[in-house]
Amino acid sequence: MSIKSPITLDAKYLAPNLTAEMVAERSVQVSACARNLREARCAGAEFTGWLSPAEILTSDENSRLNAKIAQLRKETDMLVVIGIGGSYLGSRAVIEALSDCPEQVVYAGQNISADYATKLIKQLSGKRVAINVISKSGTTTEPAVAFRLLKQLVPADKQSEWIVATTDANKGSLLKLAREMGCATFVVPDTIGGRYSVLSAVGLLPIGYAGVDIKALVQGAAECAKLCAGSDDPLKNPALFYAAARNVLYHQGYSTELLANFEPRLHTLAEWWKQLFGESEGKQNIGLFPAAVDFTTDLHSMGQYVQEGRRNLIESFVIIDGGEPDLTVPAWDVDADGMNYLAGKPISWVNQMAYEATAAAHRDGGVPNLTIHLAELSAASLGALMYMFEYACGVSCLMQGVNPFNQPGVEAYKLNMFKLLGKPGYEGGIAAVEAVEVKF
Amino acid sequence: MSIKSPITLDAKYLAPNLTAEMVAERSVQVSACARNLREARCAGAEFTGWLSPAEILTSDENSRLNAKIAQLRKETDMLVVIGIGGSYLGSRAVIEALSDCPEQVVYAGQNISADYATKLIKQLSGKRVAINVISKSGTTTEPAVAFRLLKQLVPADKQSEWIVATTDANKGSLLKLAREMGCATFVVPDTIGGRYSVLSAVGLLPIGYAGVDIKALVQGAAECAKLCAGSDDPLKNPALFYAAARNVLYHQGYSTELLANFEPRLHTLAEWWKQLFGESEGKQNIGLFPAAVDFTTDLHSMGQYVQEGRRNLIESFVIIDGGEPDLTVPAWDVDADGMNYLAGKPISWVNQMAYEATAAAHRDGGVPNLTIHLAELSAASLGALMYMFEYACGVSCLMQGVNPFNQPGVEAYKLNMFKLLGKPGYEGGIAAVEAVEVKF
Repeated sequence: MSIKSPITLDAKYLAPNLTAEMVAERSVQVSACARNLREARCAGAEFTGWLSPAEILTSDENSRLNAKIAQLRKETDMLVVIGIGGSYLGSRAVIEALSDCPEQVVYAGQNISADYATKLIKQLSGKRVAINVISKSGTTTEPAVAFRLLKQLVPADKQSEWIVATTDANKGSLLKLAREMGCATFVVPDTIGGRYSVLSAVGLLPIGYAGVDIKALVQGAAECAKLCAGSDDPLKNPALFYAAARNVLYHQGYSTELLANFEPRLHTLAEWWKQLFGESEGKQNIGLFPAAVDFTTDLHSMGQYVQEGRRNLIESFVIIDGGEPDLTVPAWDVDADGMNYLAGKPISWVNQMAYEATAAAHRDGGVPNLTIHLAELSAASLGALMYMFEYACGVSCLMQGVNPFNQPGVEAYKLNMFKLLGKPGYEGGIAAVEAVEVKF
Repeated sequence: MSIKSPITLDAKYLAPNLTAEMVAERSVQVSACARNLREARCAGAEFTGWLSPAEILTSDENSRLNAKIAQLRKETDMLVVIGIGGSYLGSRAVIEALSDCPEQVVYAGQNISADYATKLIKQLSGKRVAINVISKSGTTTEPAVAFRLLKQLVPADKQSEWIVATTDANKGSLLKLAREMGCATFVVPDTIGGRYSVLSAVGLLPIGYAGVDIKALVQGAAECAKLCAGSDDPLKNPALFYAAARNVLYHQGYSTELLANFEPRLHTLAEWWKQLFGESEGKQNIGLFPAAVDFTTDLHSMGQYVQEGRRNLIESFVIIDGGEPDLTVPAWDVDADGMNYLAGKPISWVNQMAYEATAAAHRDGGVPNLTIHLAELSAASLGALMYMFEYACGVSCLMQGVNPFNQPGVEAYKLNMFKLLGKPGYEGGIAAVEAVEVKF
């Protein structure tokens, strides 16, 4: 089976800083990194289970997952996803992009705010609440505290049915707890790190609950996997071109990459992308800083800086070419606001012109940019896009000489926090530094 | 009258990169810039009307504003704020930080998404809808199109009562339209640019609708104005210390500033801050790139980069020291998740420890950081904080030699867009560039 790729990359506005010839000059390195990634001959090779999306879940796990999703959708009103980082960003990105009922999924355990938890508990009051608690170990502070706070929202006689744990297959406190409670469990695979886990049960259960076609999502990613593996030439493979382009620009001195969209529903996709690239590349004191902008919204806040600020920015647009719901600009009898020249025009066309205007303006202002075009926004195309980003990220890290799959720096605040909280084994606090205060 | 300042700045983790001595060395320049700003002897001096928060609205305007707010709160269910950039970010920041009913205010005209507009219209169906359309000219594309789409949501016989225009005092198409419709109008002052306008009618009407005490907000800012004017010594004035610190660090080579919070309700405050500093400083190819992180959420996505990525980051924390609603960590009979060591502890204390852990870890990782402490989160303290940022921003820009109050770069995409849309007077399109496509 072969489907047409839903992804095209337009690189015209990378010139003159970056040309196809300059990418071609890097093709030996890019190809080698791609092969090493695919053949698991690289740093972190034990975490490349995401490379084959259709093989992450066994057929049996897939059946169990779909049955649990169907049950929860039938019996409950809301799903609380308890997880932090890669345990919720992928599912939230897909749900907000595609679901017709994103408000039926809420998120907890991704912060330690009493205000947030209080409002969430109020919002869930009177509802039939399902919980999917997602944690490899079960001991990460944020989700563990949230689960203690929210577990009681599920009636005691329903907890074994409506609480689902996604955790390690064989060990850990959450697995033990779930088994004691009689809850269904799904697997956080050993071979897939959090930020690459959206197509495992970590992402699929919440996504399925929100009514998104998870089969199409995985199939779209699987097709993209074939396409990614089909060519190691960066001029014929958008994932490799993207990896190469951002690498060359980084070594030209650019330090920040903006991911830009023109549809608010893609906001959380950019948050997922920020984790994927920031946590993968941002180590050993190198890496492009990933930032996100929602346009046209942020053209009226960050637009000035992007156009004329410090010239260390590159930009990548994610643009949906078709298939969006549409409205047209209403005509007015009296053209009080001067907008009748747009009367009858589709809003989507106005937005498309805003994108084209912006990409050209930013290039002219000294921001090299490329555009990732999706033929349409669907489960299949979004699955493909996310896979393309994962593959590009892996290659990009290998080009930089860093492990794409570890995150040693995340431990630093945790270690300090455990000391300050007095966690058993971490007593003693952190080195005190005298406050240097400035008051009015 | 004198109130205790609700703001303290702790600079201990700026060392060793930045010490109080290094700030003191800059005090002559800082003081001069502060005086020039206050005495309106600077670039953009005609836009310093925000310096005196209590004098922005006349007593009569204030009465009219409060009466309209009371009427709309009584007669309608929802307020749609139609505006972009500075026309909505300030009010949204305050409403999300302080309102008990933030969901009663929704936002439109801040993008050109048909999907967003379609969902918004559905959400407003069956509700008594008020509209506050905010635009100096009335011809900005995004809000003008949104007003055409949404005006019909207000019944024809209620439009003169439930639609309010905030616009130029004397001219422009929105003023003319509002007068023809018989709607109340409030003023976007000539002396205050969008990103400094939160304490004018631009911000106050939506904020008041959301039930926030706008009198306290303005008073808090007015008190902060007195404090800011009370000392031009950066070691005795947090606004000036902040301006000086980020300036010195910028000239040491740091290129990106992160504004970090530990409360989700402060998320949009950071978006407002990003506009304030990005649009003010980001010109002439200089300026710190403003980015925002919501912690602890983003410690599990951007945390790795912040801890170990390229060392061009500085960080400013906004921390609320007290007054938050609270919960405690529930005790469990069986300590299945190992969290019983926190049983009975306030969530707010756990969050406080997370902040202290993070600030220390980031300093140790090479990210100089400072903390702006608010004694509590209230209308008065938030008004003070926003004023402090505005004052610091003005001084910071003058230290950099740029006009704090213009935004010439925002026109670039608009000009291209008008050409592409075929707006009368802008026909002809933009220069075509051949697509450089990469496909699988």
